[in-house]
Amino acid sequence: MLVLTLAILPSAKAGSLHIMQAESPGPAPGKLVPKVGQTAKILYAIYIAMTLVQVILLIIAGLPVYDAFIHAFGTAGTGGFSNMNRSVGEYNNVAVEIIITVFMFIFGVNFSLYYQGLKGNFKAFWRDEEFRFYTGTVVIAIALIVINTLGTVYQGFWDSLRYASFQVSSIITTTGYSTVDFNLWPVFSKAILVVLMLVGACAGSTGGALKCIRIVLLFKAARREIVKIIHPRSVHTVKIGGKVVSEEALGAVMSYFFLYMAVLVVSTLIVALEGKDPVTSVTAVICTIGNVGPGLGVAGPVGNFSSFSLLSKIVLSVDMLIGRLEILPVLVMFSPSSWKRVNI
Amino acid sequence: MLVLTLAILPSAKAGSLHIMQAESPGPAPGKLVPKVGQTAKILYAIYIAMTLVQVILLIIAGLPVYDAFIHAFGTAGTGGFSNMNRSVGEYNNVAVEIIITVFMFIFGVNFSLYYQGLKGNFKAFWRDEEFRFYTGTVVIAIALIVINTLGTVYQGFWDSLRYASFQVSSIITTTGYSTVDFNLWPVFSKAILVVLMLVGACAGSTGGALKCIRIVLLFKAARREIVKIIHPRSVHTVKIGGKVVSEEALGAVMSYFFLYMAVLVVSTLIVALEGKDPVTSVTAVICTIGNVGPGLGVAGPVGNFSSFSLLSKIVLSVDMLIGRLEILPVLVMFSPSSWKRVNI
Repeated sequence: MLVLTLAILPSAKAGSLHIMQAESPGPAPGKLVPKVGQTAKILYAIYIAMTLVQVILLIIAGLPVYDAFIHAFGTAGTGGFSNMNRSVGEYNNVAVEIIITVFMFIFGVNFSLYYQGLKGNFKAFWRDEEFRFYTGTVVIAIALIVINTLGTVYQGFWDSLRYASFQVSSIITTTGYSTVDFNLWPVFSKAILVVLMLVGACAGSTGGALKCIRIVLLFKAARREIVKIIHPRSVHTVKIGGKVVSEEALGAVMSYFFLYMAVLVVSTLIVALEGKDPVTSVTAVICTIGNVGPGLGVAGPVGNFSSFSLLSKIVLSVDMLIGRLEILPVLVMFSPSSWKRVNI
Repeated sequence: MLVLTLAILPSAKAGSLHIMQAESPGPAPGKLVPKVGQTAKILYAIYIAMTLVQVILLIIAGLPVYDAFIHAFGTAGTGGFSNMNRSVGEYNNVAVEIIITVFMFIFGVNFSLYYQGLKGNFKAFWRDEEFRFYTGTVVIAIALIVINTLGTVYQGFWDSLRYASFQVSSIITTTGYSTVDFNLWPVFSKAILVVLMLVGACAGSTGGALKCIRIVLLFKAARREIVKIIHPRSVHTVKIGGKVVSEEALGAVMSYFFLYMAVLVVSTLIVALEGKDPVTSVTAVICTIGNVGPGLGVAGPVGNFSSFSLLSKIVLSVDMLIGRLEILPVLVMFSPSSWKRVNI
């Protein structure tokens, strides 16, 4: 699709650079190798190697070979496809759940960090602000859900931790696997999951949604506004990983956040037309635009989208594409001025 | 409160200017008069005159003098205070409802436009992009709700128009009066109202929430990102009323939008702790941070906030203050560095 967009744009060369920028917000922790082609090869090798490790581990844990491949592929691509009706929950196998929980988290990390790790630069992980934010969010979300569900939904601490960590890892990476019907969780825990659906994983991973780097930049930009009021005469730049983020990149991230919310609001209004309950309508949109999979209510982990109207299905399908392509390329495609010939 | 913030800031003089900027985003349609004090006097005179006109009209329409004053004051300040339990709906008086509908709309307009009107410059209204956006939103929202409620909730067109226009005018201006329990409306109509709770009225009016000018600027900034991809080599500025908006002002608006959403998410999570239904929890926060009044569910127009827990009440009270003061001054107050002595 992206290649298609680039191919039909009149100003393709310059445009492609900008679309590449839009697809990878924020500077990566150091360039990998000078050539784009070689970088891609290294990243693919890491991707394939990690997938194979997961396949082997899942087979050892007791999954049939076929199922092991399907679930490793579903984890690696953060797609969340399962050949089981009740997703990973069907196996009721703790080892399988732990393996998938850990690998979902791993595939949500910016892949260039693994390249750094391969070169022995393990410090790159903790130096990376996005990785810290991502890990911190996962840990806090698990802790909050454990506290909230312990004694209400689950009687044992390990049960609570098992289901909470699987679901948090699945939702923030926008994988969408489930081991439990989180529709039955308390409102607070469900609200945490909805926030994670919006946040998403790291840039440079296979996950969707807003992505952690954007949230980090948005918080930094907001903090700058406060500092500006207190120290109006000093120079205010937003830095990430010690490097100054250009005002242009920052503006693009802030506009992206607004566009994401605008698409979300408009889609929800259209989906609400068929009269499904508000929670189903909103989370159906949030989980499709973020490519998560299950939302809440009718669109929850044990439900599906079959009962939605044709109009809603079209809107939700478009949202999946828009979310995956990060909005801007799609809007460019449908913008009248991109079809005019430009004299360069 | 604002004066308090300014008074306790070490760098008060410079800070106050920035806080004034934060309070009035986007340029006004022409300066009124050179001196701030005189401008304030003119605006107060317009405010008082319009309130008195409304009082007289309400008395003519049949309200007791005391009630007329209360409802005119509640409209002018977009506070929505009524001495009746079922708000304006208690009178079941069409004339009263029309007067309040129109005056709520009027008090949601940027007051400097009335000054322009007084000078005979009526074109200022249609030249003002925020006014056009505000009026357009009101008209479209009323039309959509009429179509949605006609035949389902209301059998007659005039009934539908009467209740829809009152509620749209009340919610977008963040007044909060109600003539009907819109909890009983279809999901789509309720969703429209929630969007209006977020949008709010014009800057320079008495209304709260995000304010139309910010939404207009956010859309323009987002459109610029699309144009940048198509024409990467041209210069891209955002204009309003023919004047270029500085990148700094634009960044402030975009950060404000993110902060607004961040406060909303955090507050909703805390309110969700007590386990009320999601719609009540979210809309309670949206309607308090926007200073609207009624939300949906338990916090709806015929409900109230008495059943909320102490923690939720504290959060919602803080949200009302934060929303009214437009977030930044409050964050400055609680920012540690604003308490340090600065060498200027």
